[in-house]
Amino acid sequence: MLIAIVNPNTTASMTDAVVEAASAIARPDTELLAVTAPTGVPSIESHIDEVHGSAAVLAEVERLEAAESAAARPDAYVIACFGDTGLPGAREAATGPVVGMTEAALMTAALLAHRFSIITMPARTIEQSDRVVRTLGLGHRATVRAVDEPVSEVTSGSLHLLDLFVAEGRRAIADDRAEAIILGCAGLADLVAPLASALGVPVIEGVSAAVTLAEGLVAQGLTTSRALTWGRPGEVRS
Amino acid sequence: MLIAIVNPNTTASMTDAVVEAASAIARPDTELLAVTAPTGVPSIESHIDEVHGSAAVLAEVERLEAAESAAARPDAYVIACFGDTGLPGAREAATGPVVGMTEAALMTAALLAHRFSIITMPARTIEQSDRVVRTLGLGHRATVRAVDEPVSEVTSGSLHLLDLFVAEGRRAIADDRAEAIILGCAGLADLVAPLASALGVPVIEGVSAAVTLAEGLVAQGLTTSRALTWGRPGEVRS
Amino acid sequence: MLIAIVNPNTTASMTDAVVEAASAIARPDTELLAVTAPTGVPSIESHIDEVHGSAAVLAEVERLEAAESAAARPDAYVIACFGDTGLPGAREAATGPVVGMTEAALMTAALLAHRFSIITMPARTIEQSDRVVRTLGLGHRATVRAVDEPVSEVTSGSLHLLDLFVAEGRRAIADDRAEAIILGCAGLADLVAPLASALGVPVIEGVSAAVTLAEGLVAQGLTTSRALTWGRPGEVRS
Amino acid sequence: MLIAIVNPNTTASMTDAVVEAASAIARPDTELLAVTAPTGVPSIESHIDEVHGSAAVLAEVERLEAAESAAARPDAYVIACFGDTGLPGAREAATGPVVGMTEAALMTAALLAHRFSIITMPARTIEQSDRVVRTLGLGHRATVRAVDEPVSEVTSGSLHLLDLFVAEGRRAIADDRAEAIILGCAGLADLVAPLASALGVPVIEGVSAAVTLAEGLVAQGLTTSRALTWGRPGEVRS
Amino acid sequence: MLIAIVNPNTTASMTDAVVEAASAIARPDTELLAVTAPTGVPSIESHIDEVHGSAAVLAEVERLEAAESAAARPDAYVIACFGDTGLPGAREAATGPVVGMTEAALMTAALLAHRFSIITMPARTIEQSDRVVRTLGLGHRATVRAVDEPVSEVTSGSLHLLDLFVAEGRRAIADDRAEAIILGCAGLADLVAPLASALGVPVIEGVSAAVTLAEGLVAQGLTTSRALTWGRPGEVRS
Amino acid sequence: MLIAIVNPNTTASMTDAVVEAASAIARPDTELLAVTAPTGVPSIESHIDEVHGSAAVLAEVERLEAAESAAARPDAYVIACFGDTGLPGAREAATGPVVGMTEAALMTAALLAHRFSIITMPARTIEQSDRVVRTLGLGHRATVRAVDEPVSEVTSGSLHLLDLFVAEGRRAIADDRAEAIILGCAGLADLVAPLASALGVPVIEGVSAAVTLAEGLVAQGLTTSRALTWGRPGEVRS
Repeated sequence: MLIAIVNPNTTASMTDAVVEAASAIARPDTELLAVTAPTGVPSIESHIDEVHGSAAVLAEVERLEAAESAAARPDAYVIACFGDTGLPGAREAATGPVVGMTEAALMTAALLAHRFSIITMPARTIEQSDRVVRTLGLGHRATVRAVDEPVSEVTSGSLHLLDLFVAEGRRAIADDRAEAIILGCAGLADLVAPLASALGVPVIEGVSAAVTLAEGLVAQGLTTSRALTWGRPGEVRS
Repeated sequence: MLIAIVNPNTTASMTDAVVEAASAIARPDTELLAVTAPTGVPSIESHIDEVHGSAAVLAEVERLEAAESAAARPDAYVIACFGDTGLPGAREAATGPVVGMTEAALMTAALLAHRFSIITMPARTIEQSDRVVRTLGLGHRATVRAVDEPVSEVTSGSLHLLDLFVAEGRRAIADDRAEAIILGCAGLADLVAPLASALGVPVIEGVSAAVTLAEGLVAQGLTTSRALTWGRPGEVRS
Repeated sequence: MLIAIVNPNTTASMTDAVVEAASAIARPDTELLAVTAPTGVPSIESHIDEVHGSAAVLAEVERLEAAESAAARPDAYVIACFGDTGLPGAREAATGPVVGMTEAALMTAALLAHRFSIITMPARTIEQSDRVVRTLGLGHRATVRAVDEPVSEVTSGSLHLLDLFVAEGRRAIADDRAEAIILGCAGLADLVAPLASALGVPVIEGVSAAVTLAEGLVAQGLTTSRALTWGRPGEVRS
Repeated sequence: MLIAIVNPNTTASMTDAVVEAASAIARPDTELLAVTAPTGVPSIESHIDEVHGSAAVLAEVERLEAAESAAARPDAYVIACFGDTGLPGAREAATGPVVGMTEAALMTAALLAHRFSIITMPARTIEQSDRVVRTLGLGHRATVRAVDEPVSEVTSGSLHLLDLFVAEGRRAIADDRAEAIILGCAGLADLVAPLASALGVPVIEGVSAAVTLAEGLVAQGLTTSRALTWGRPGEVRS
Repeated sequence: MLIAIVNPNTTASMTDAVVEAASAIARPDTELLAVTAPTGVPSIESHIDEVHGSAAVLAEVERLEAAESAAARPDAYVIACFGDTGLPGAREAATGPVVGMTEAALMTAALLAHRFSIITMPARTIEQSDRVVRTLGLGHRATVRAVDEPVSEVTSGSLHLLDLFVAEGRRAIADDRAEAIILGCAGLADLVAPLASALGVPVIEGVSAAVTLAEGLVAQGLTTSRALTWGRPGEVRS
Repeated sequence: MLIAIVNPNTTASMTDAVVEAASAIARPDTELLAVTAPTGVPSIESHIDEVHGSAAVLAEVERLEAAESAAARPDAYVIACFGDTGLPGAREAATGPVVGMTEAALMTAALLAHRFSIITMPARTIEQSDRVVRTLGLGHRATVRAVDEPVSEVTSGSLHLLDLFVAEGRRAIADDRAEAIILGCAGLADLVAPLASALGVPVIEGVSAAVTLAEGLVAQGLTTSRALTWGRPGEVRS
């Protein structure tokens, strides 16, 4: 099956890192299609950035959906940006299901731990994580924390941020009784193993989590409900 | 003071109707600036429409903020579309405060009634209202209902929809114990008086509510916090 | 328009300070009527105090509503005590709308910031703030903190409390990620400017916020729903 | 032990009926002291009524607490009015614990049933029940319904209302999946047996429930915490 | 009346201590029947332990319900283990009402204090307390903390743990604004008096609280609803 | 990979049907191991049944974990009973992750629809679904409904129940605005296609959903956190 991993920002190196990490855990028969926003902003760190990112995500989904050959049309999409930038529009535009890395990471954590923490970056994007937590209703089990560094820090690897994540993770464990940690930014896959080792709790990378969820939806033959919210004009039934 | 009323869709007749209605309740010293999206979609009835609307809102706010003369820069903005399309980006881009018609209507209802209902249109946009209800936390007092007609129905007045709104309003009163009704779409100002008369409860028009809130914020010298969520890159303090 | 600012306690100097502060932000055509409880308690710092304060508020509203000339009857009321002492009875007794300073401050903060904190005083009145937060449903965005000083401290100005509020505000910003601060007591208007300056976030004074909300409701021709909860015996429709 | 049952309204026949019903279930060594508001209103059916009722409750508690002989001072108090009128002030003024009939009924129902409904009267007092439900956090398990009759209907027995309560109870069972019913007004003890028989689910009378809770608190030697919220000036520790 | 106190673990010394403490507060006409799990685990400190404990609780309730003489059948049951191990099955199997020590302690605290904390042990059982808090909906008023010692520490008295509970209780008061403390483990009755003395707030022992609630239910002639959730096959009405 | 599908009841025909349905959607390299409770009850329709089912689940997991050869030990487990009977103990006992069919179905629905309904059976098991909804926090998006038939109805196929599910599904769509339906019982896989066709919304079968989630967790190398709640005695870190 073909899964498009859509990076709402224009930084191809982040897309590449994300897709590489996800490839390691995808099904053998899954083909991952790396999609980088052709226009917009180099990272999504504000609500203005999200407007640009959402527009890019929608345009890319519409472009892929317009593929002449059905085989070139993705079976599912993954939004590879914390906060799930552009998810609602993409869910409506895509024929197949769309999974955000944030919602995927939260669901995954809920299967492994009673309480858990997102560690996002930078601190000013905490609201974007809160928004997804609230949409899912997980506020009684999840906290949102931050390492206050710009996303640009991770465009060429994230290992140099390990100490900061270990320190914040320890605070999450001690103060919030977190039993699992969610990496709150795309491009942090490098941190999964060393952080899990340092903290002794599961560390969840959302793009990988989202790919497996997307694979599962496709395997079940499920896609977005068109009944109401995610319907498409002309197709809606209410 | 100068308040820009930003219509995220491209239908100028809706903007005009909205601004006219708001003018009737604005302060004598308030000047309302009608802003219609120059590009995008003629109405916001889906999540895809919201992507286009959000981009238009942001572009218009940025255009107005770039005015050479300070006097031409709005003191505040009102988002004139139910669901508060584009609010987060606008709040970040604008120097002055930004108020959405949905959040304004909900706050107004909460001052007048214990329980209340939004009647939005069409039914497929219920989620957009739910999103604002959830952001404010008013789910224990507010319900969201719909008259399932397209927004295009209201581009030249809404009085022909009165019977549908009366019927749905009666259901809200009987089934949800609603004590006030929020008109869940811009351009329904015509309905306020006849619907209130038919139902015997307050009927709230969100753009008018938002204009008075915006006036109040400006009068208090308050604007969006730049501390974290709504900060602007380079200005942020965390 | 005529807005009565009702202080549920008997300390006229607090009423004067509150009305003076509100005058600075009220509309030019708004007349503020200072109302001090003629009997009761000098400050509201307990649930017993609230019983006395609520009785005084109701009696004063009933007295004003009984005015022979319609011109002398307030168009709206503001409750000038944190916790919104006596609000429910006043809302029922008054012809025009009634706005509490606590609910007004919380709504105002929600328009400016993702998360925010009330700093009330003394600490034993935290429950009263929690009660309003819960009624509005803002528990996911608001925290309640306290400077543990008696209300009597503010009867002749509040500037000497600045350091305590700065310290508690810094804790709110650091520990709760507050992006705006609500002054949790009437009579603290002196603190707005220096506290905002020290903390770098908006500081909200509830009486001013309530006056602008009341002005807005009157401008829209809205008043309390009489449908059920706030109906008046003999007038109720259910 | 001596338990004062405080009726916030002035109708002694309701107090008598309430105390008689509670006597049937009280411990043999419990003495029930009937307290009727000497001044105020004949029934509590509005927020204005609650102001008068709260003042009467506080005055009566303070009068009883001032008893010269310790033996004449109640060991605990029960508030015998739905909505728990005057509870916060009474809790602060009384040396012993204070239990409201509404909170007691809700706790009792939660021990017996997954979901349950209050049937209050008249409909305009639904908010008062909602307030207690919200304070306890039971909104996910409790609904509030009403028989829309004035409280005056029950001053000389309630059996003539049986059919109305049966009909509303059946709606609660069918529509809300209620598994127990709470009688939402003092003075309905006559209905317990026939309603339980007609509906086939437990029917809870709040004053009786509150008396047993108060007995239990006294037996455990527990009383209201004075640490913060329910402290008393001069005694508070924060 | 006969109340069975069911200890889900096999440690008879804990049952004895619990029953002895409860005897001191039970009604003179209450007979307490000590029931220790004949098989299973010596303490309940994990979810696996709860499986064994639940099975033992159910078997014991079924054994007691099968008593030939009605007089030997308990009028009510109390589950004497924090987390209320086995409560749902017992509630279904028993003719009389069943009260868990955790739910009883939480209800008792809610009558005495605005905010309160459970101090459980060991830390790995926090989820079990969270589960009961969530079932009751008290998350806005209760926090769960822990002294991280194994339950085996309390099999022969708990006074040696006093310092640890005092320290954690002080943190609850300072950090969570707790106004009452719930002892989060059976067998801690020794701590009630010295901890209350050290902290200056009410300290609640759940088995005692549960016994008084059970007495009250029996006095009111109430038992578990058989309507739906707690019905018994063959007897169910839906 | 080897995934054990554990049926907490003793009806092997249900296990077979469940495993057959799941096989159709599992990865090619996934081996599904059918596990039927060797002792206990033929269906799980009450809280007593859950005690027996939980014990059986735990015993089977422990038996499989004790396998001498690592290859015979499951990589993950799926609980194939609505309400996720025995999940907590299994999660603790298993080396690999454990996924319940109810939590899996709810997460899947949340990816496809704004609001959705569980249709469980019989009606007396609604509480078990509510419990999972509450644990995940999805009460603002999910409702629980029932077809009131005994589970025994589905031991040899479920197609004869189609009309009942269609009728209840239509009520969910009309009254709750459900946009997807979750089949609330194992053994209903036959209904997925015809129900989806009749209702026009996605229909989710929980065991299939759980298998894909379990596959994803194994692919990511993730398992249950041992930090606190799901730790194992001797291994715990707090």
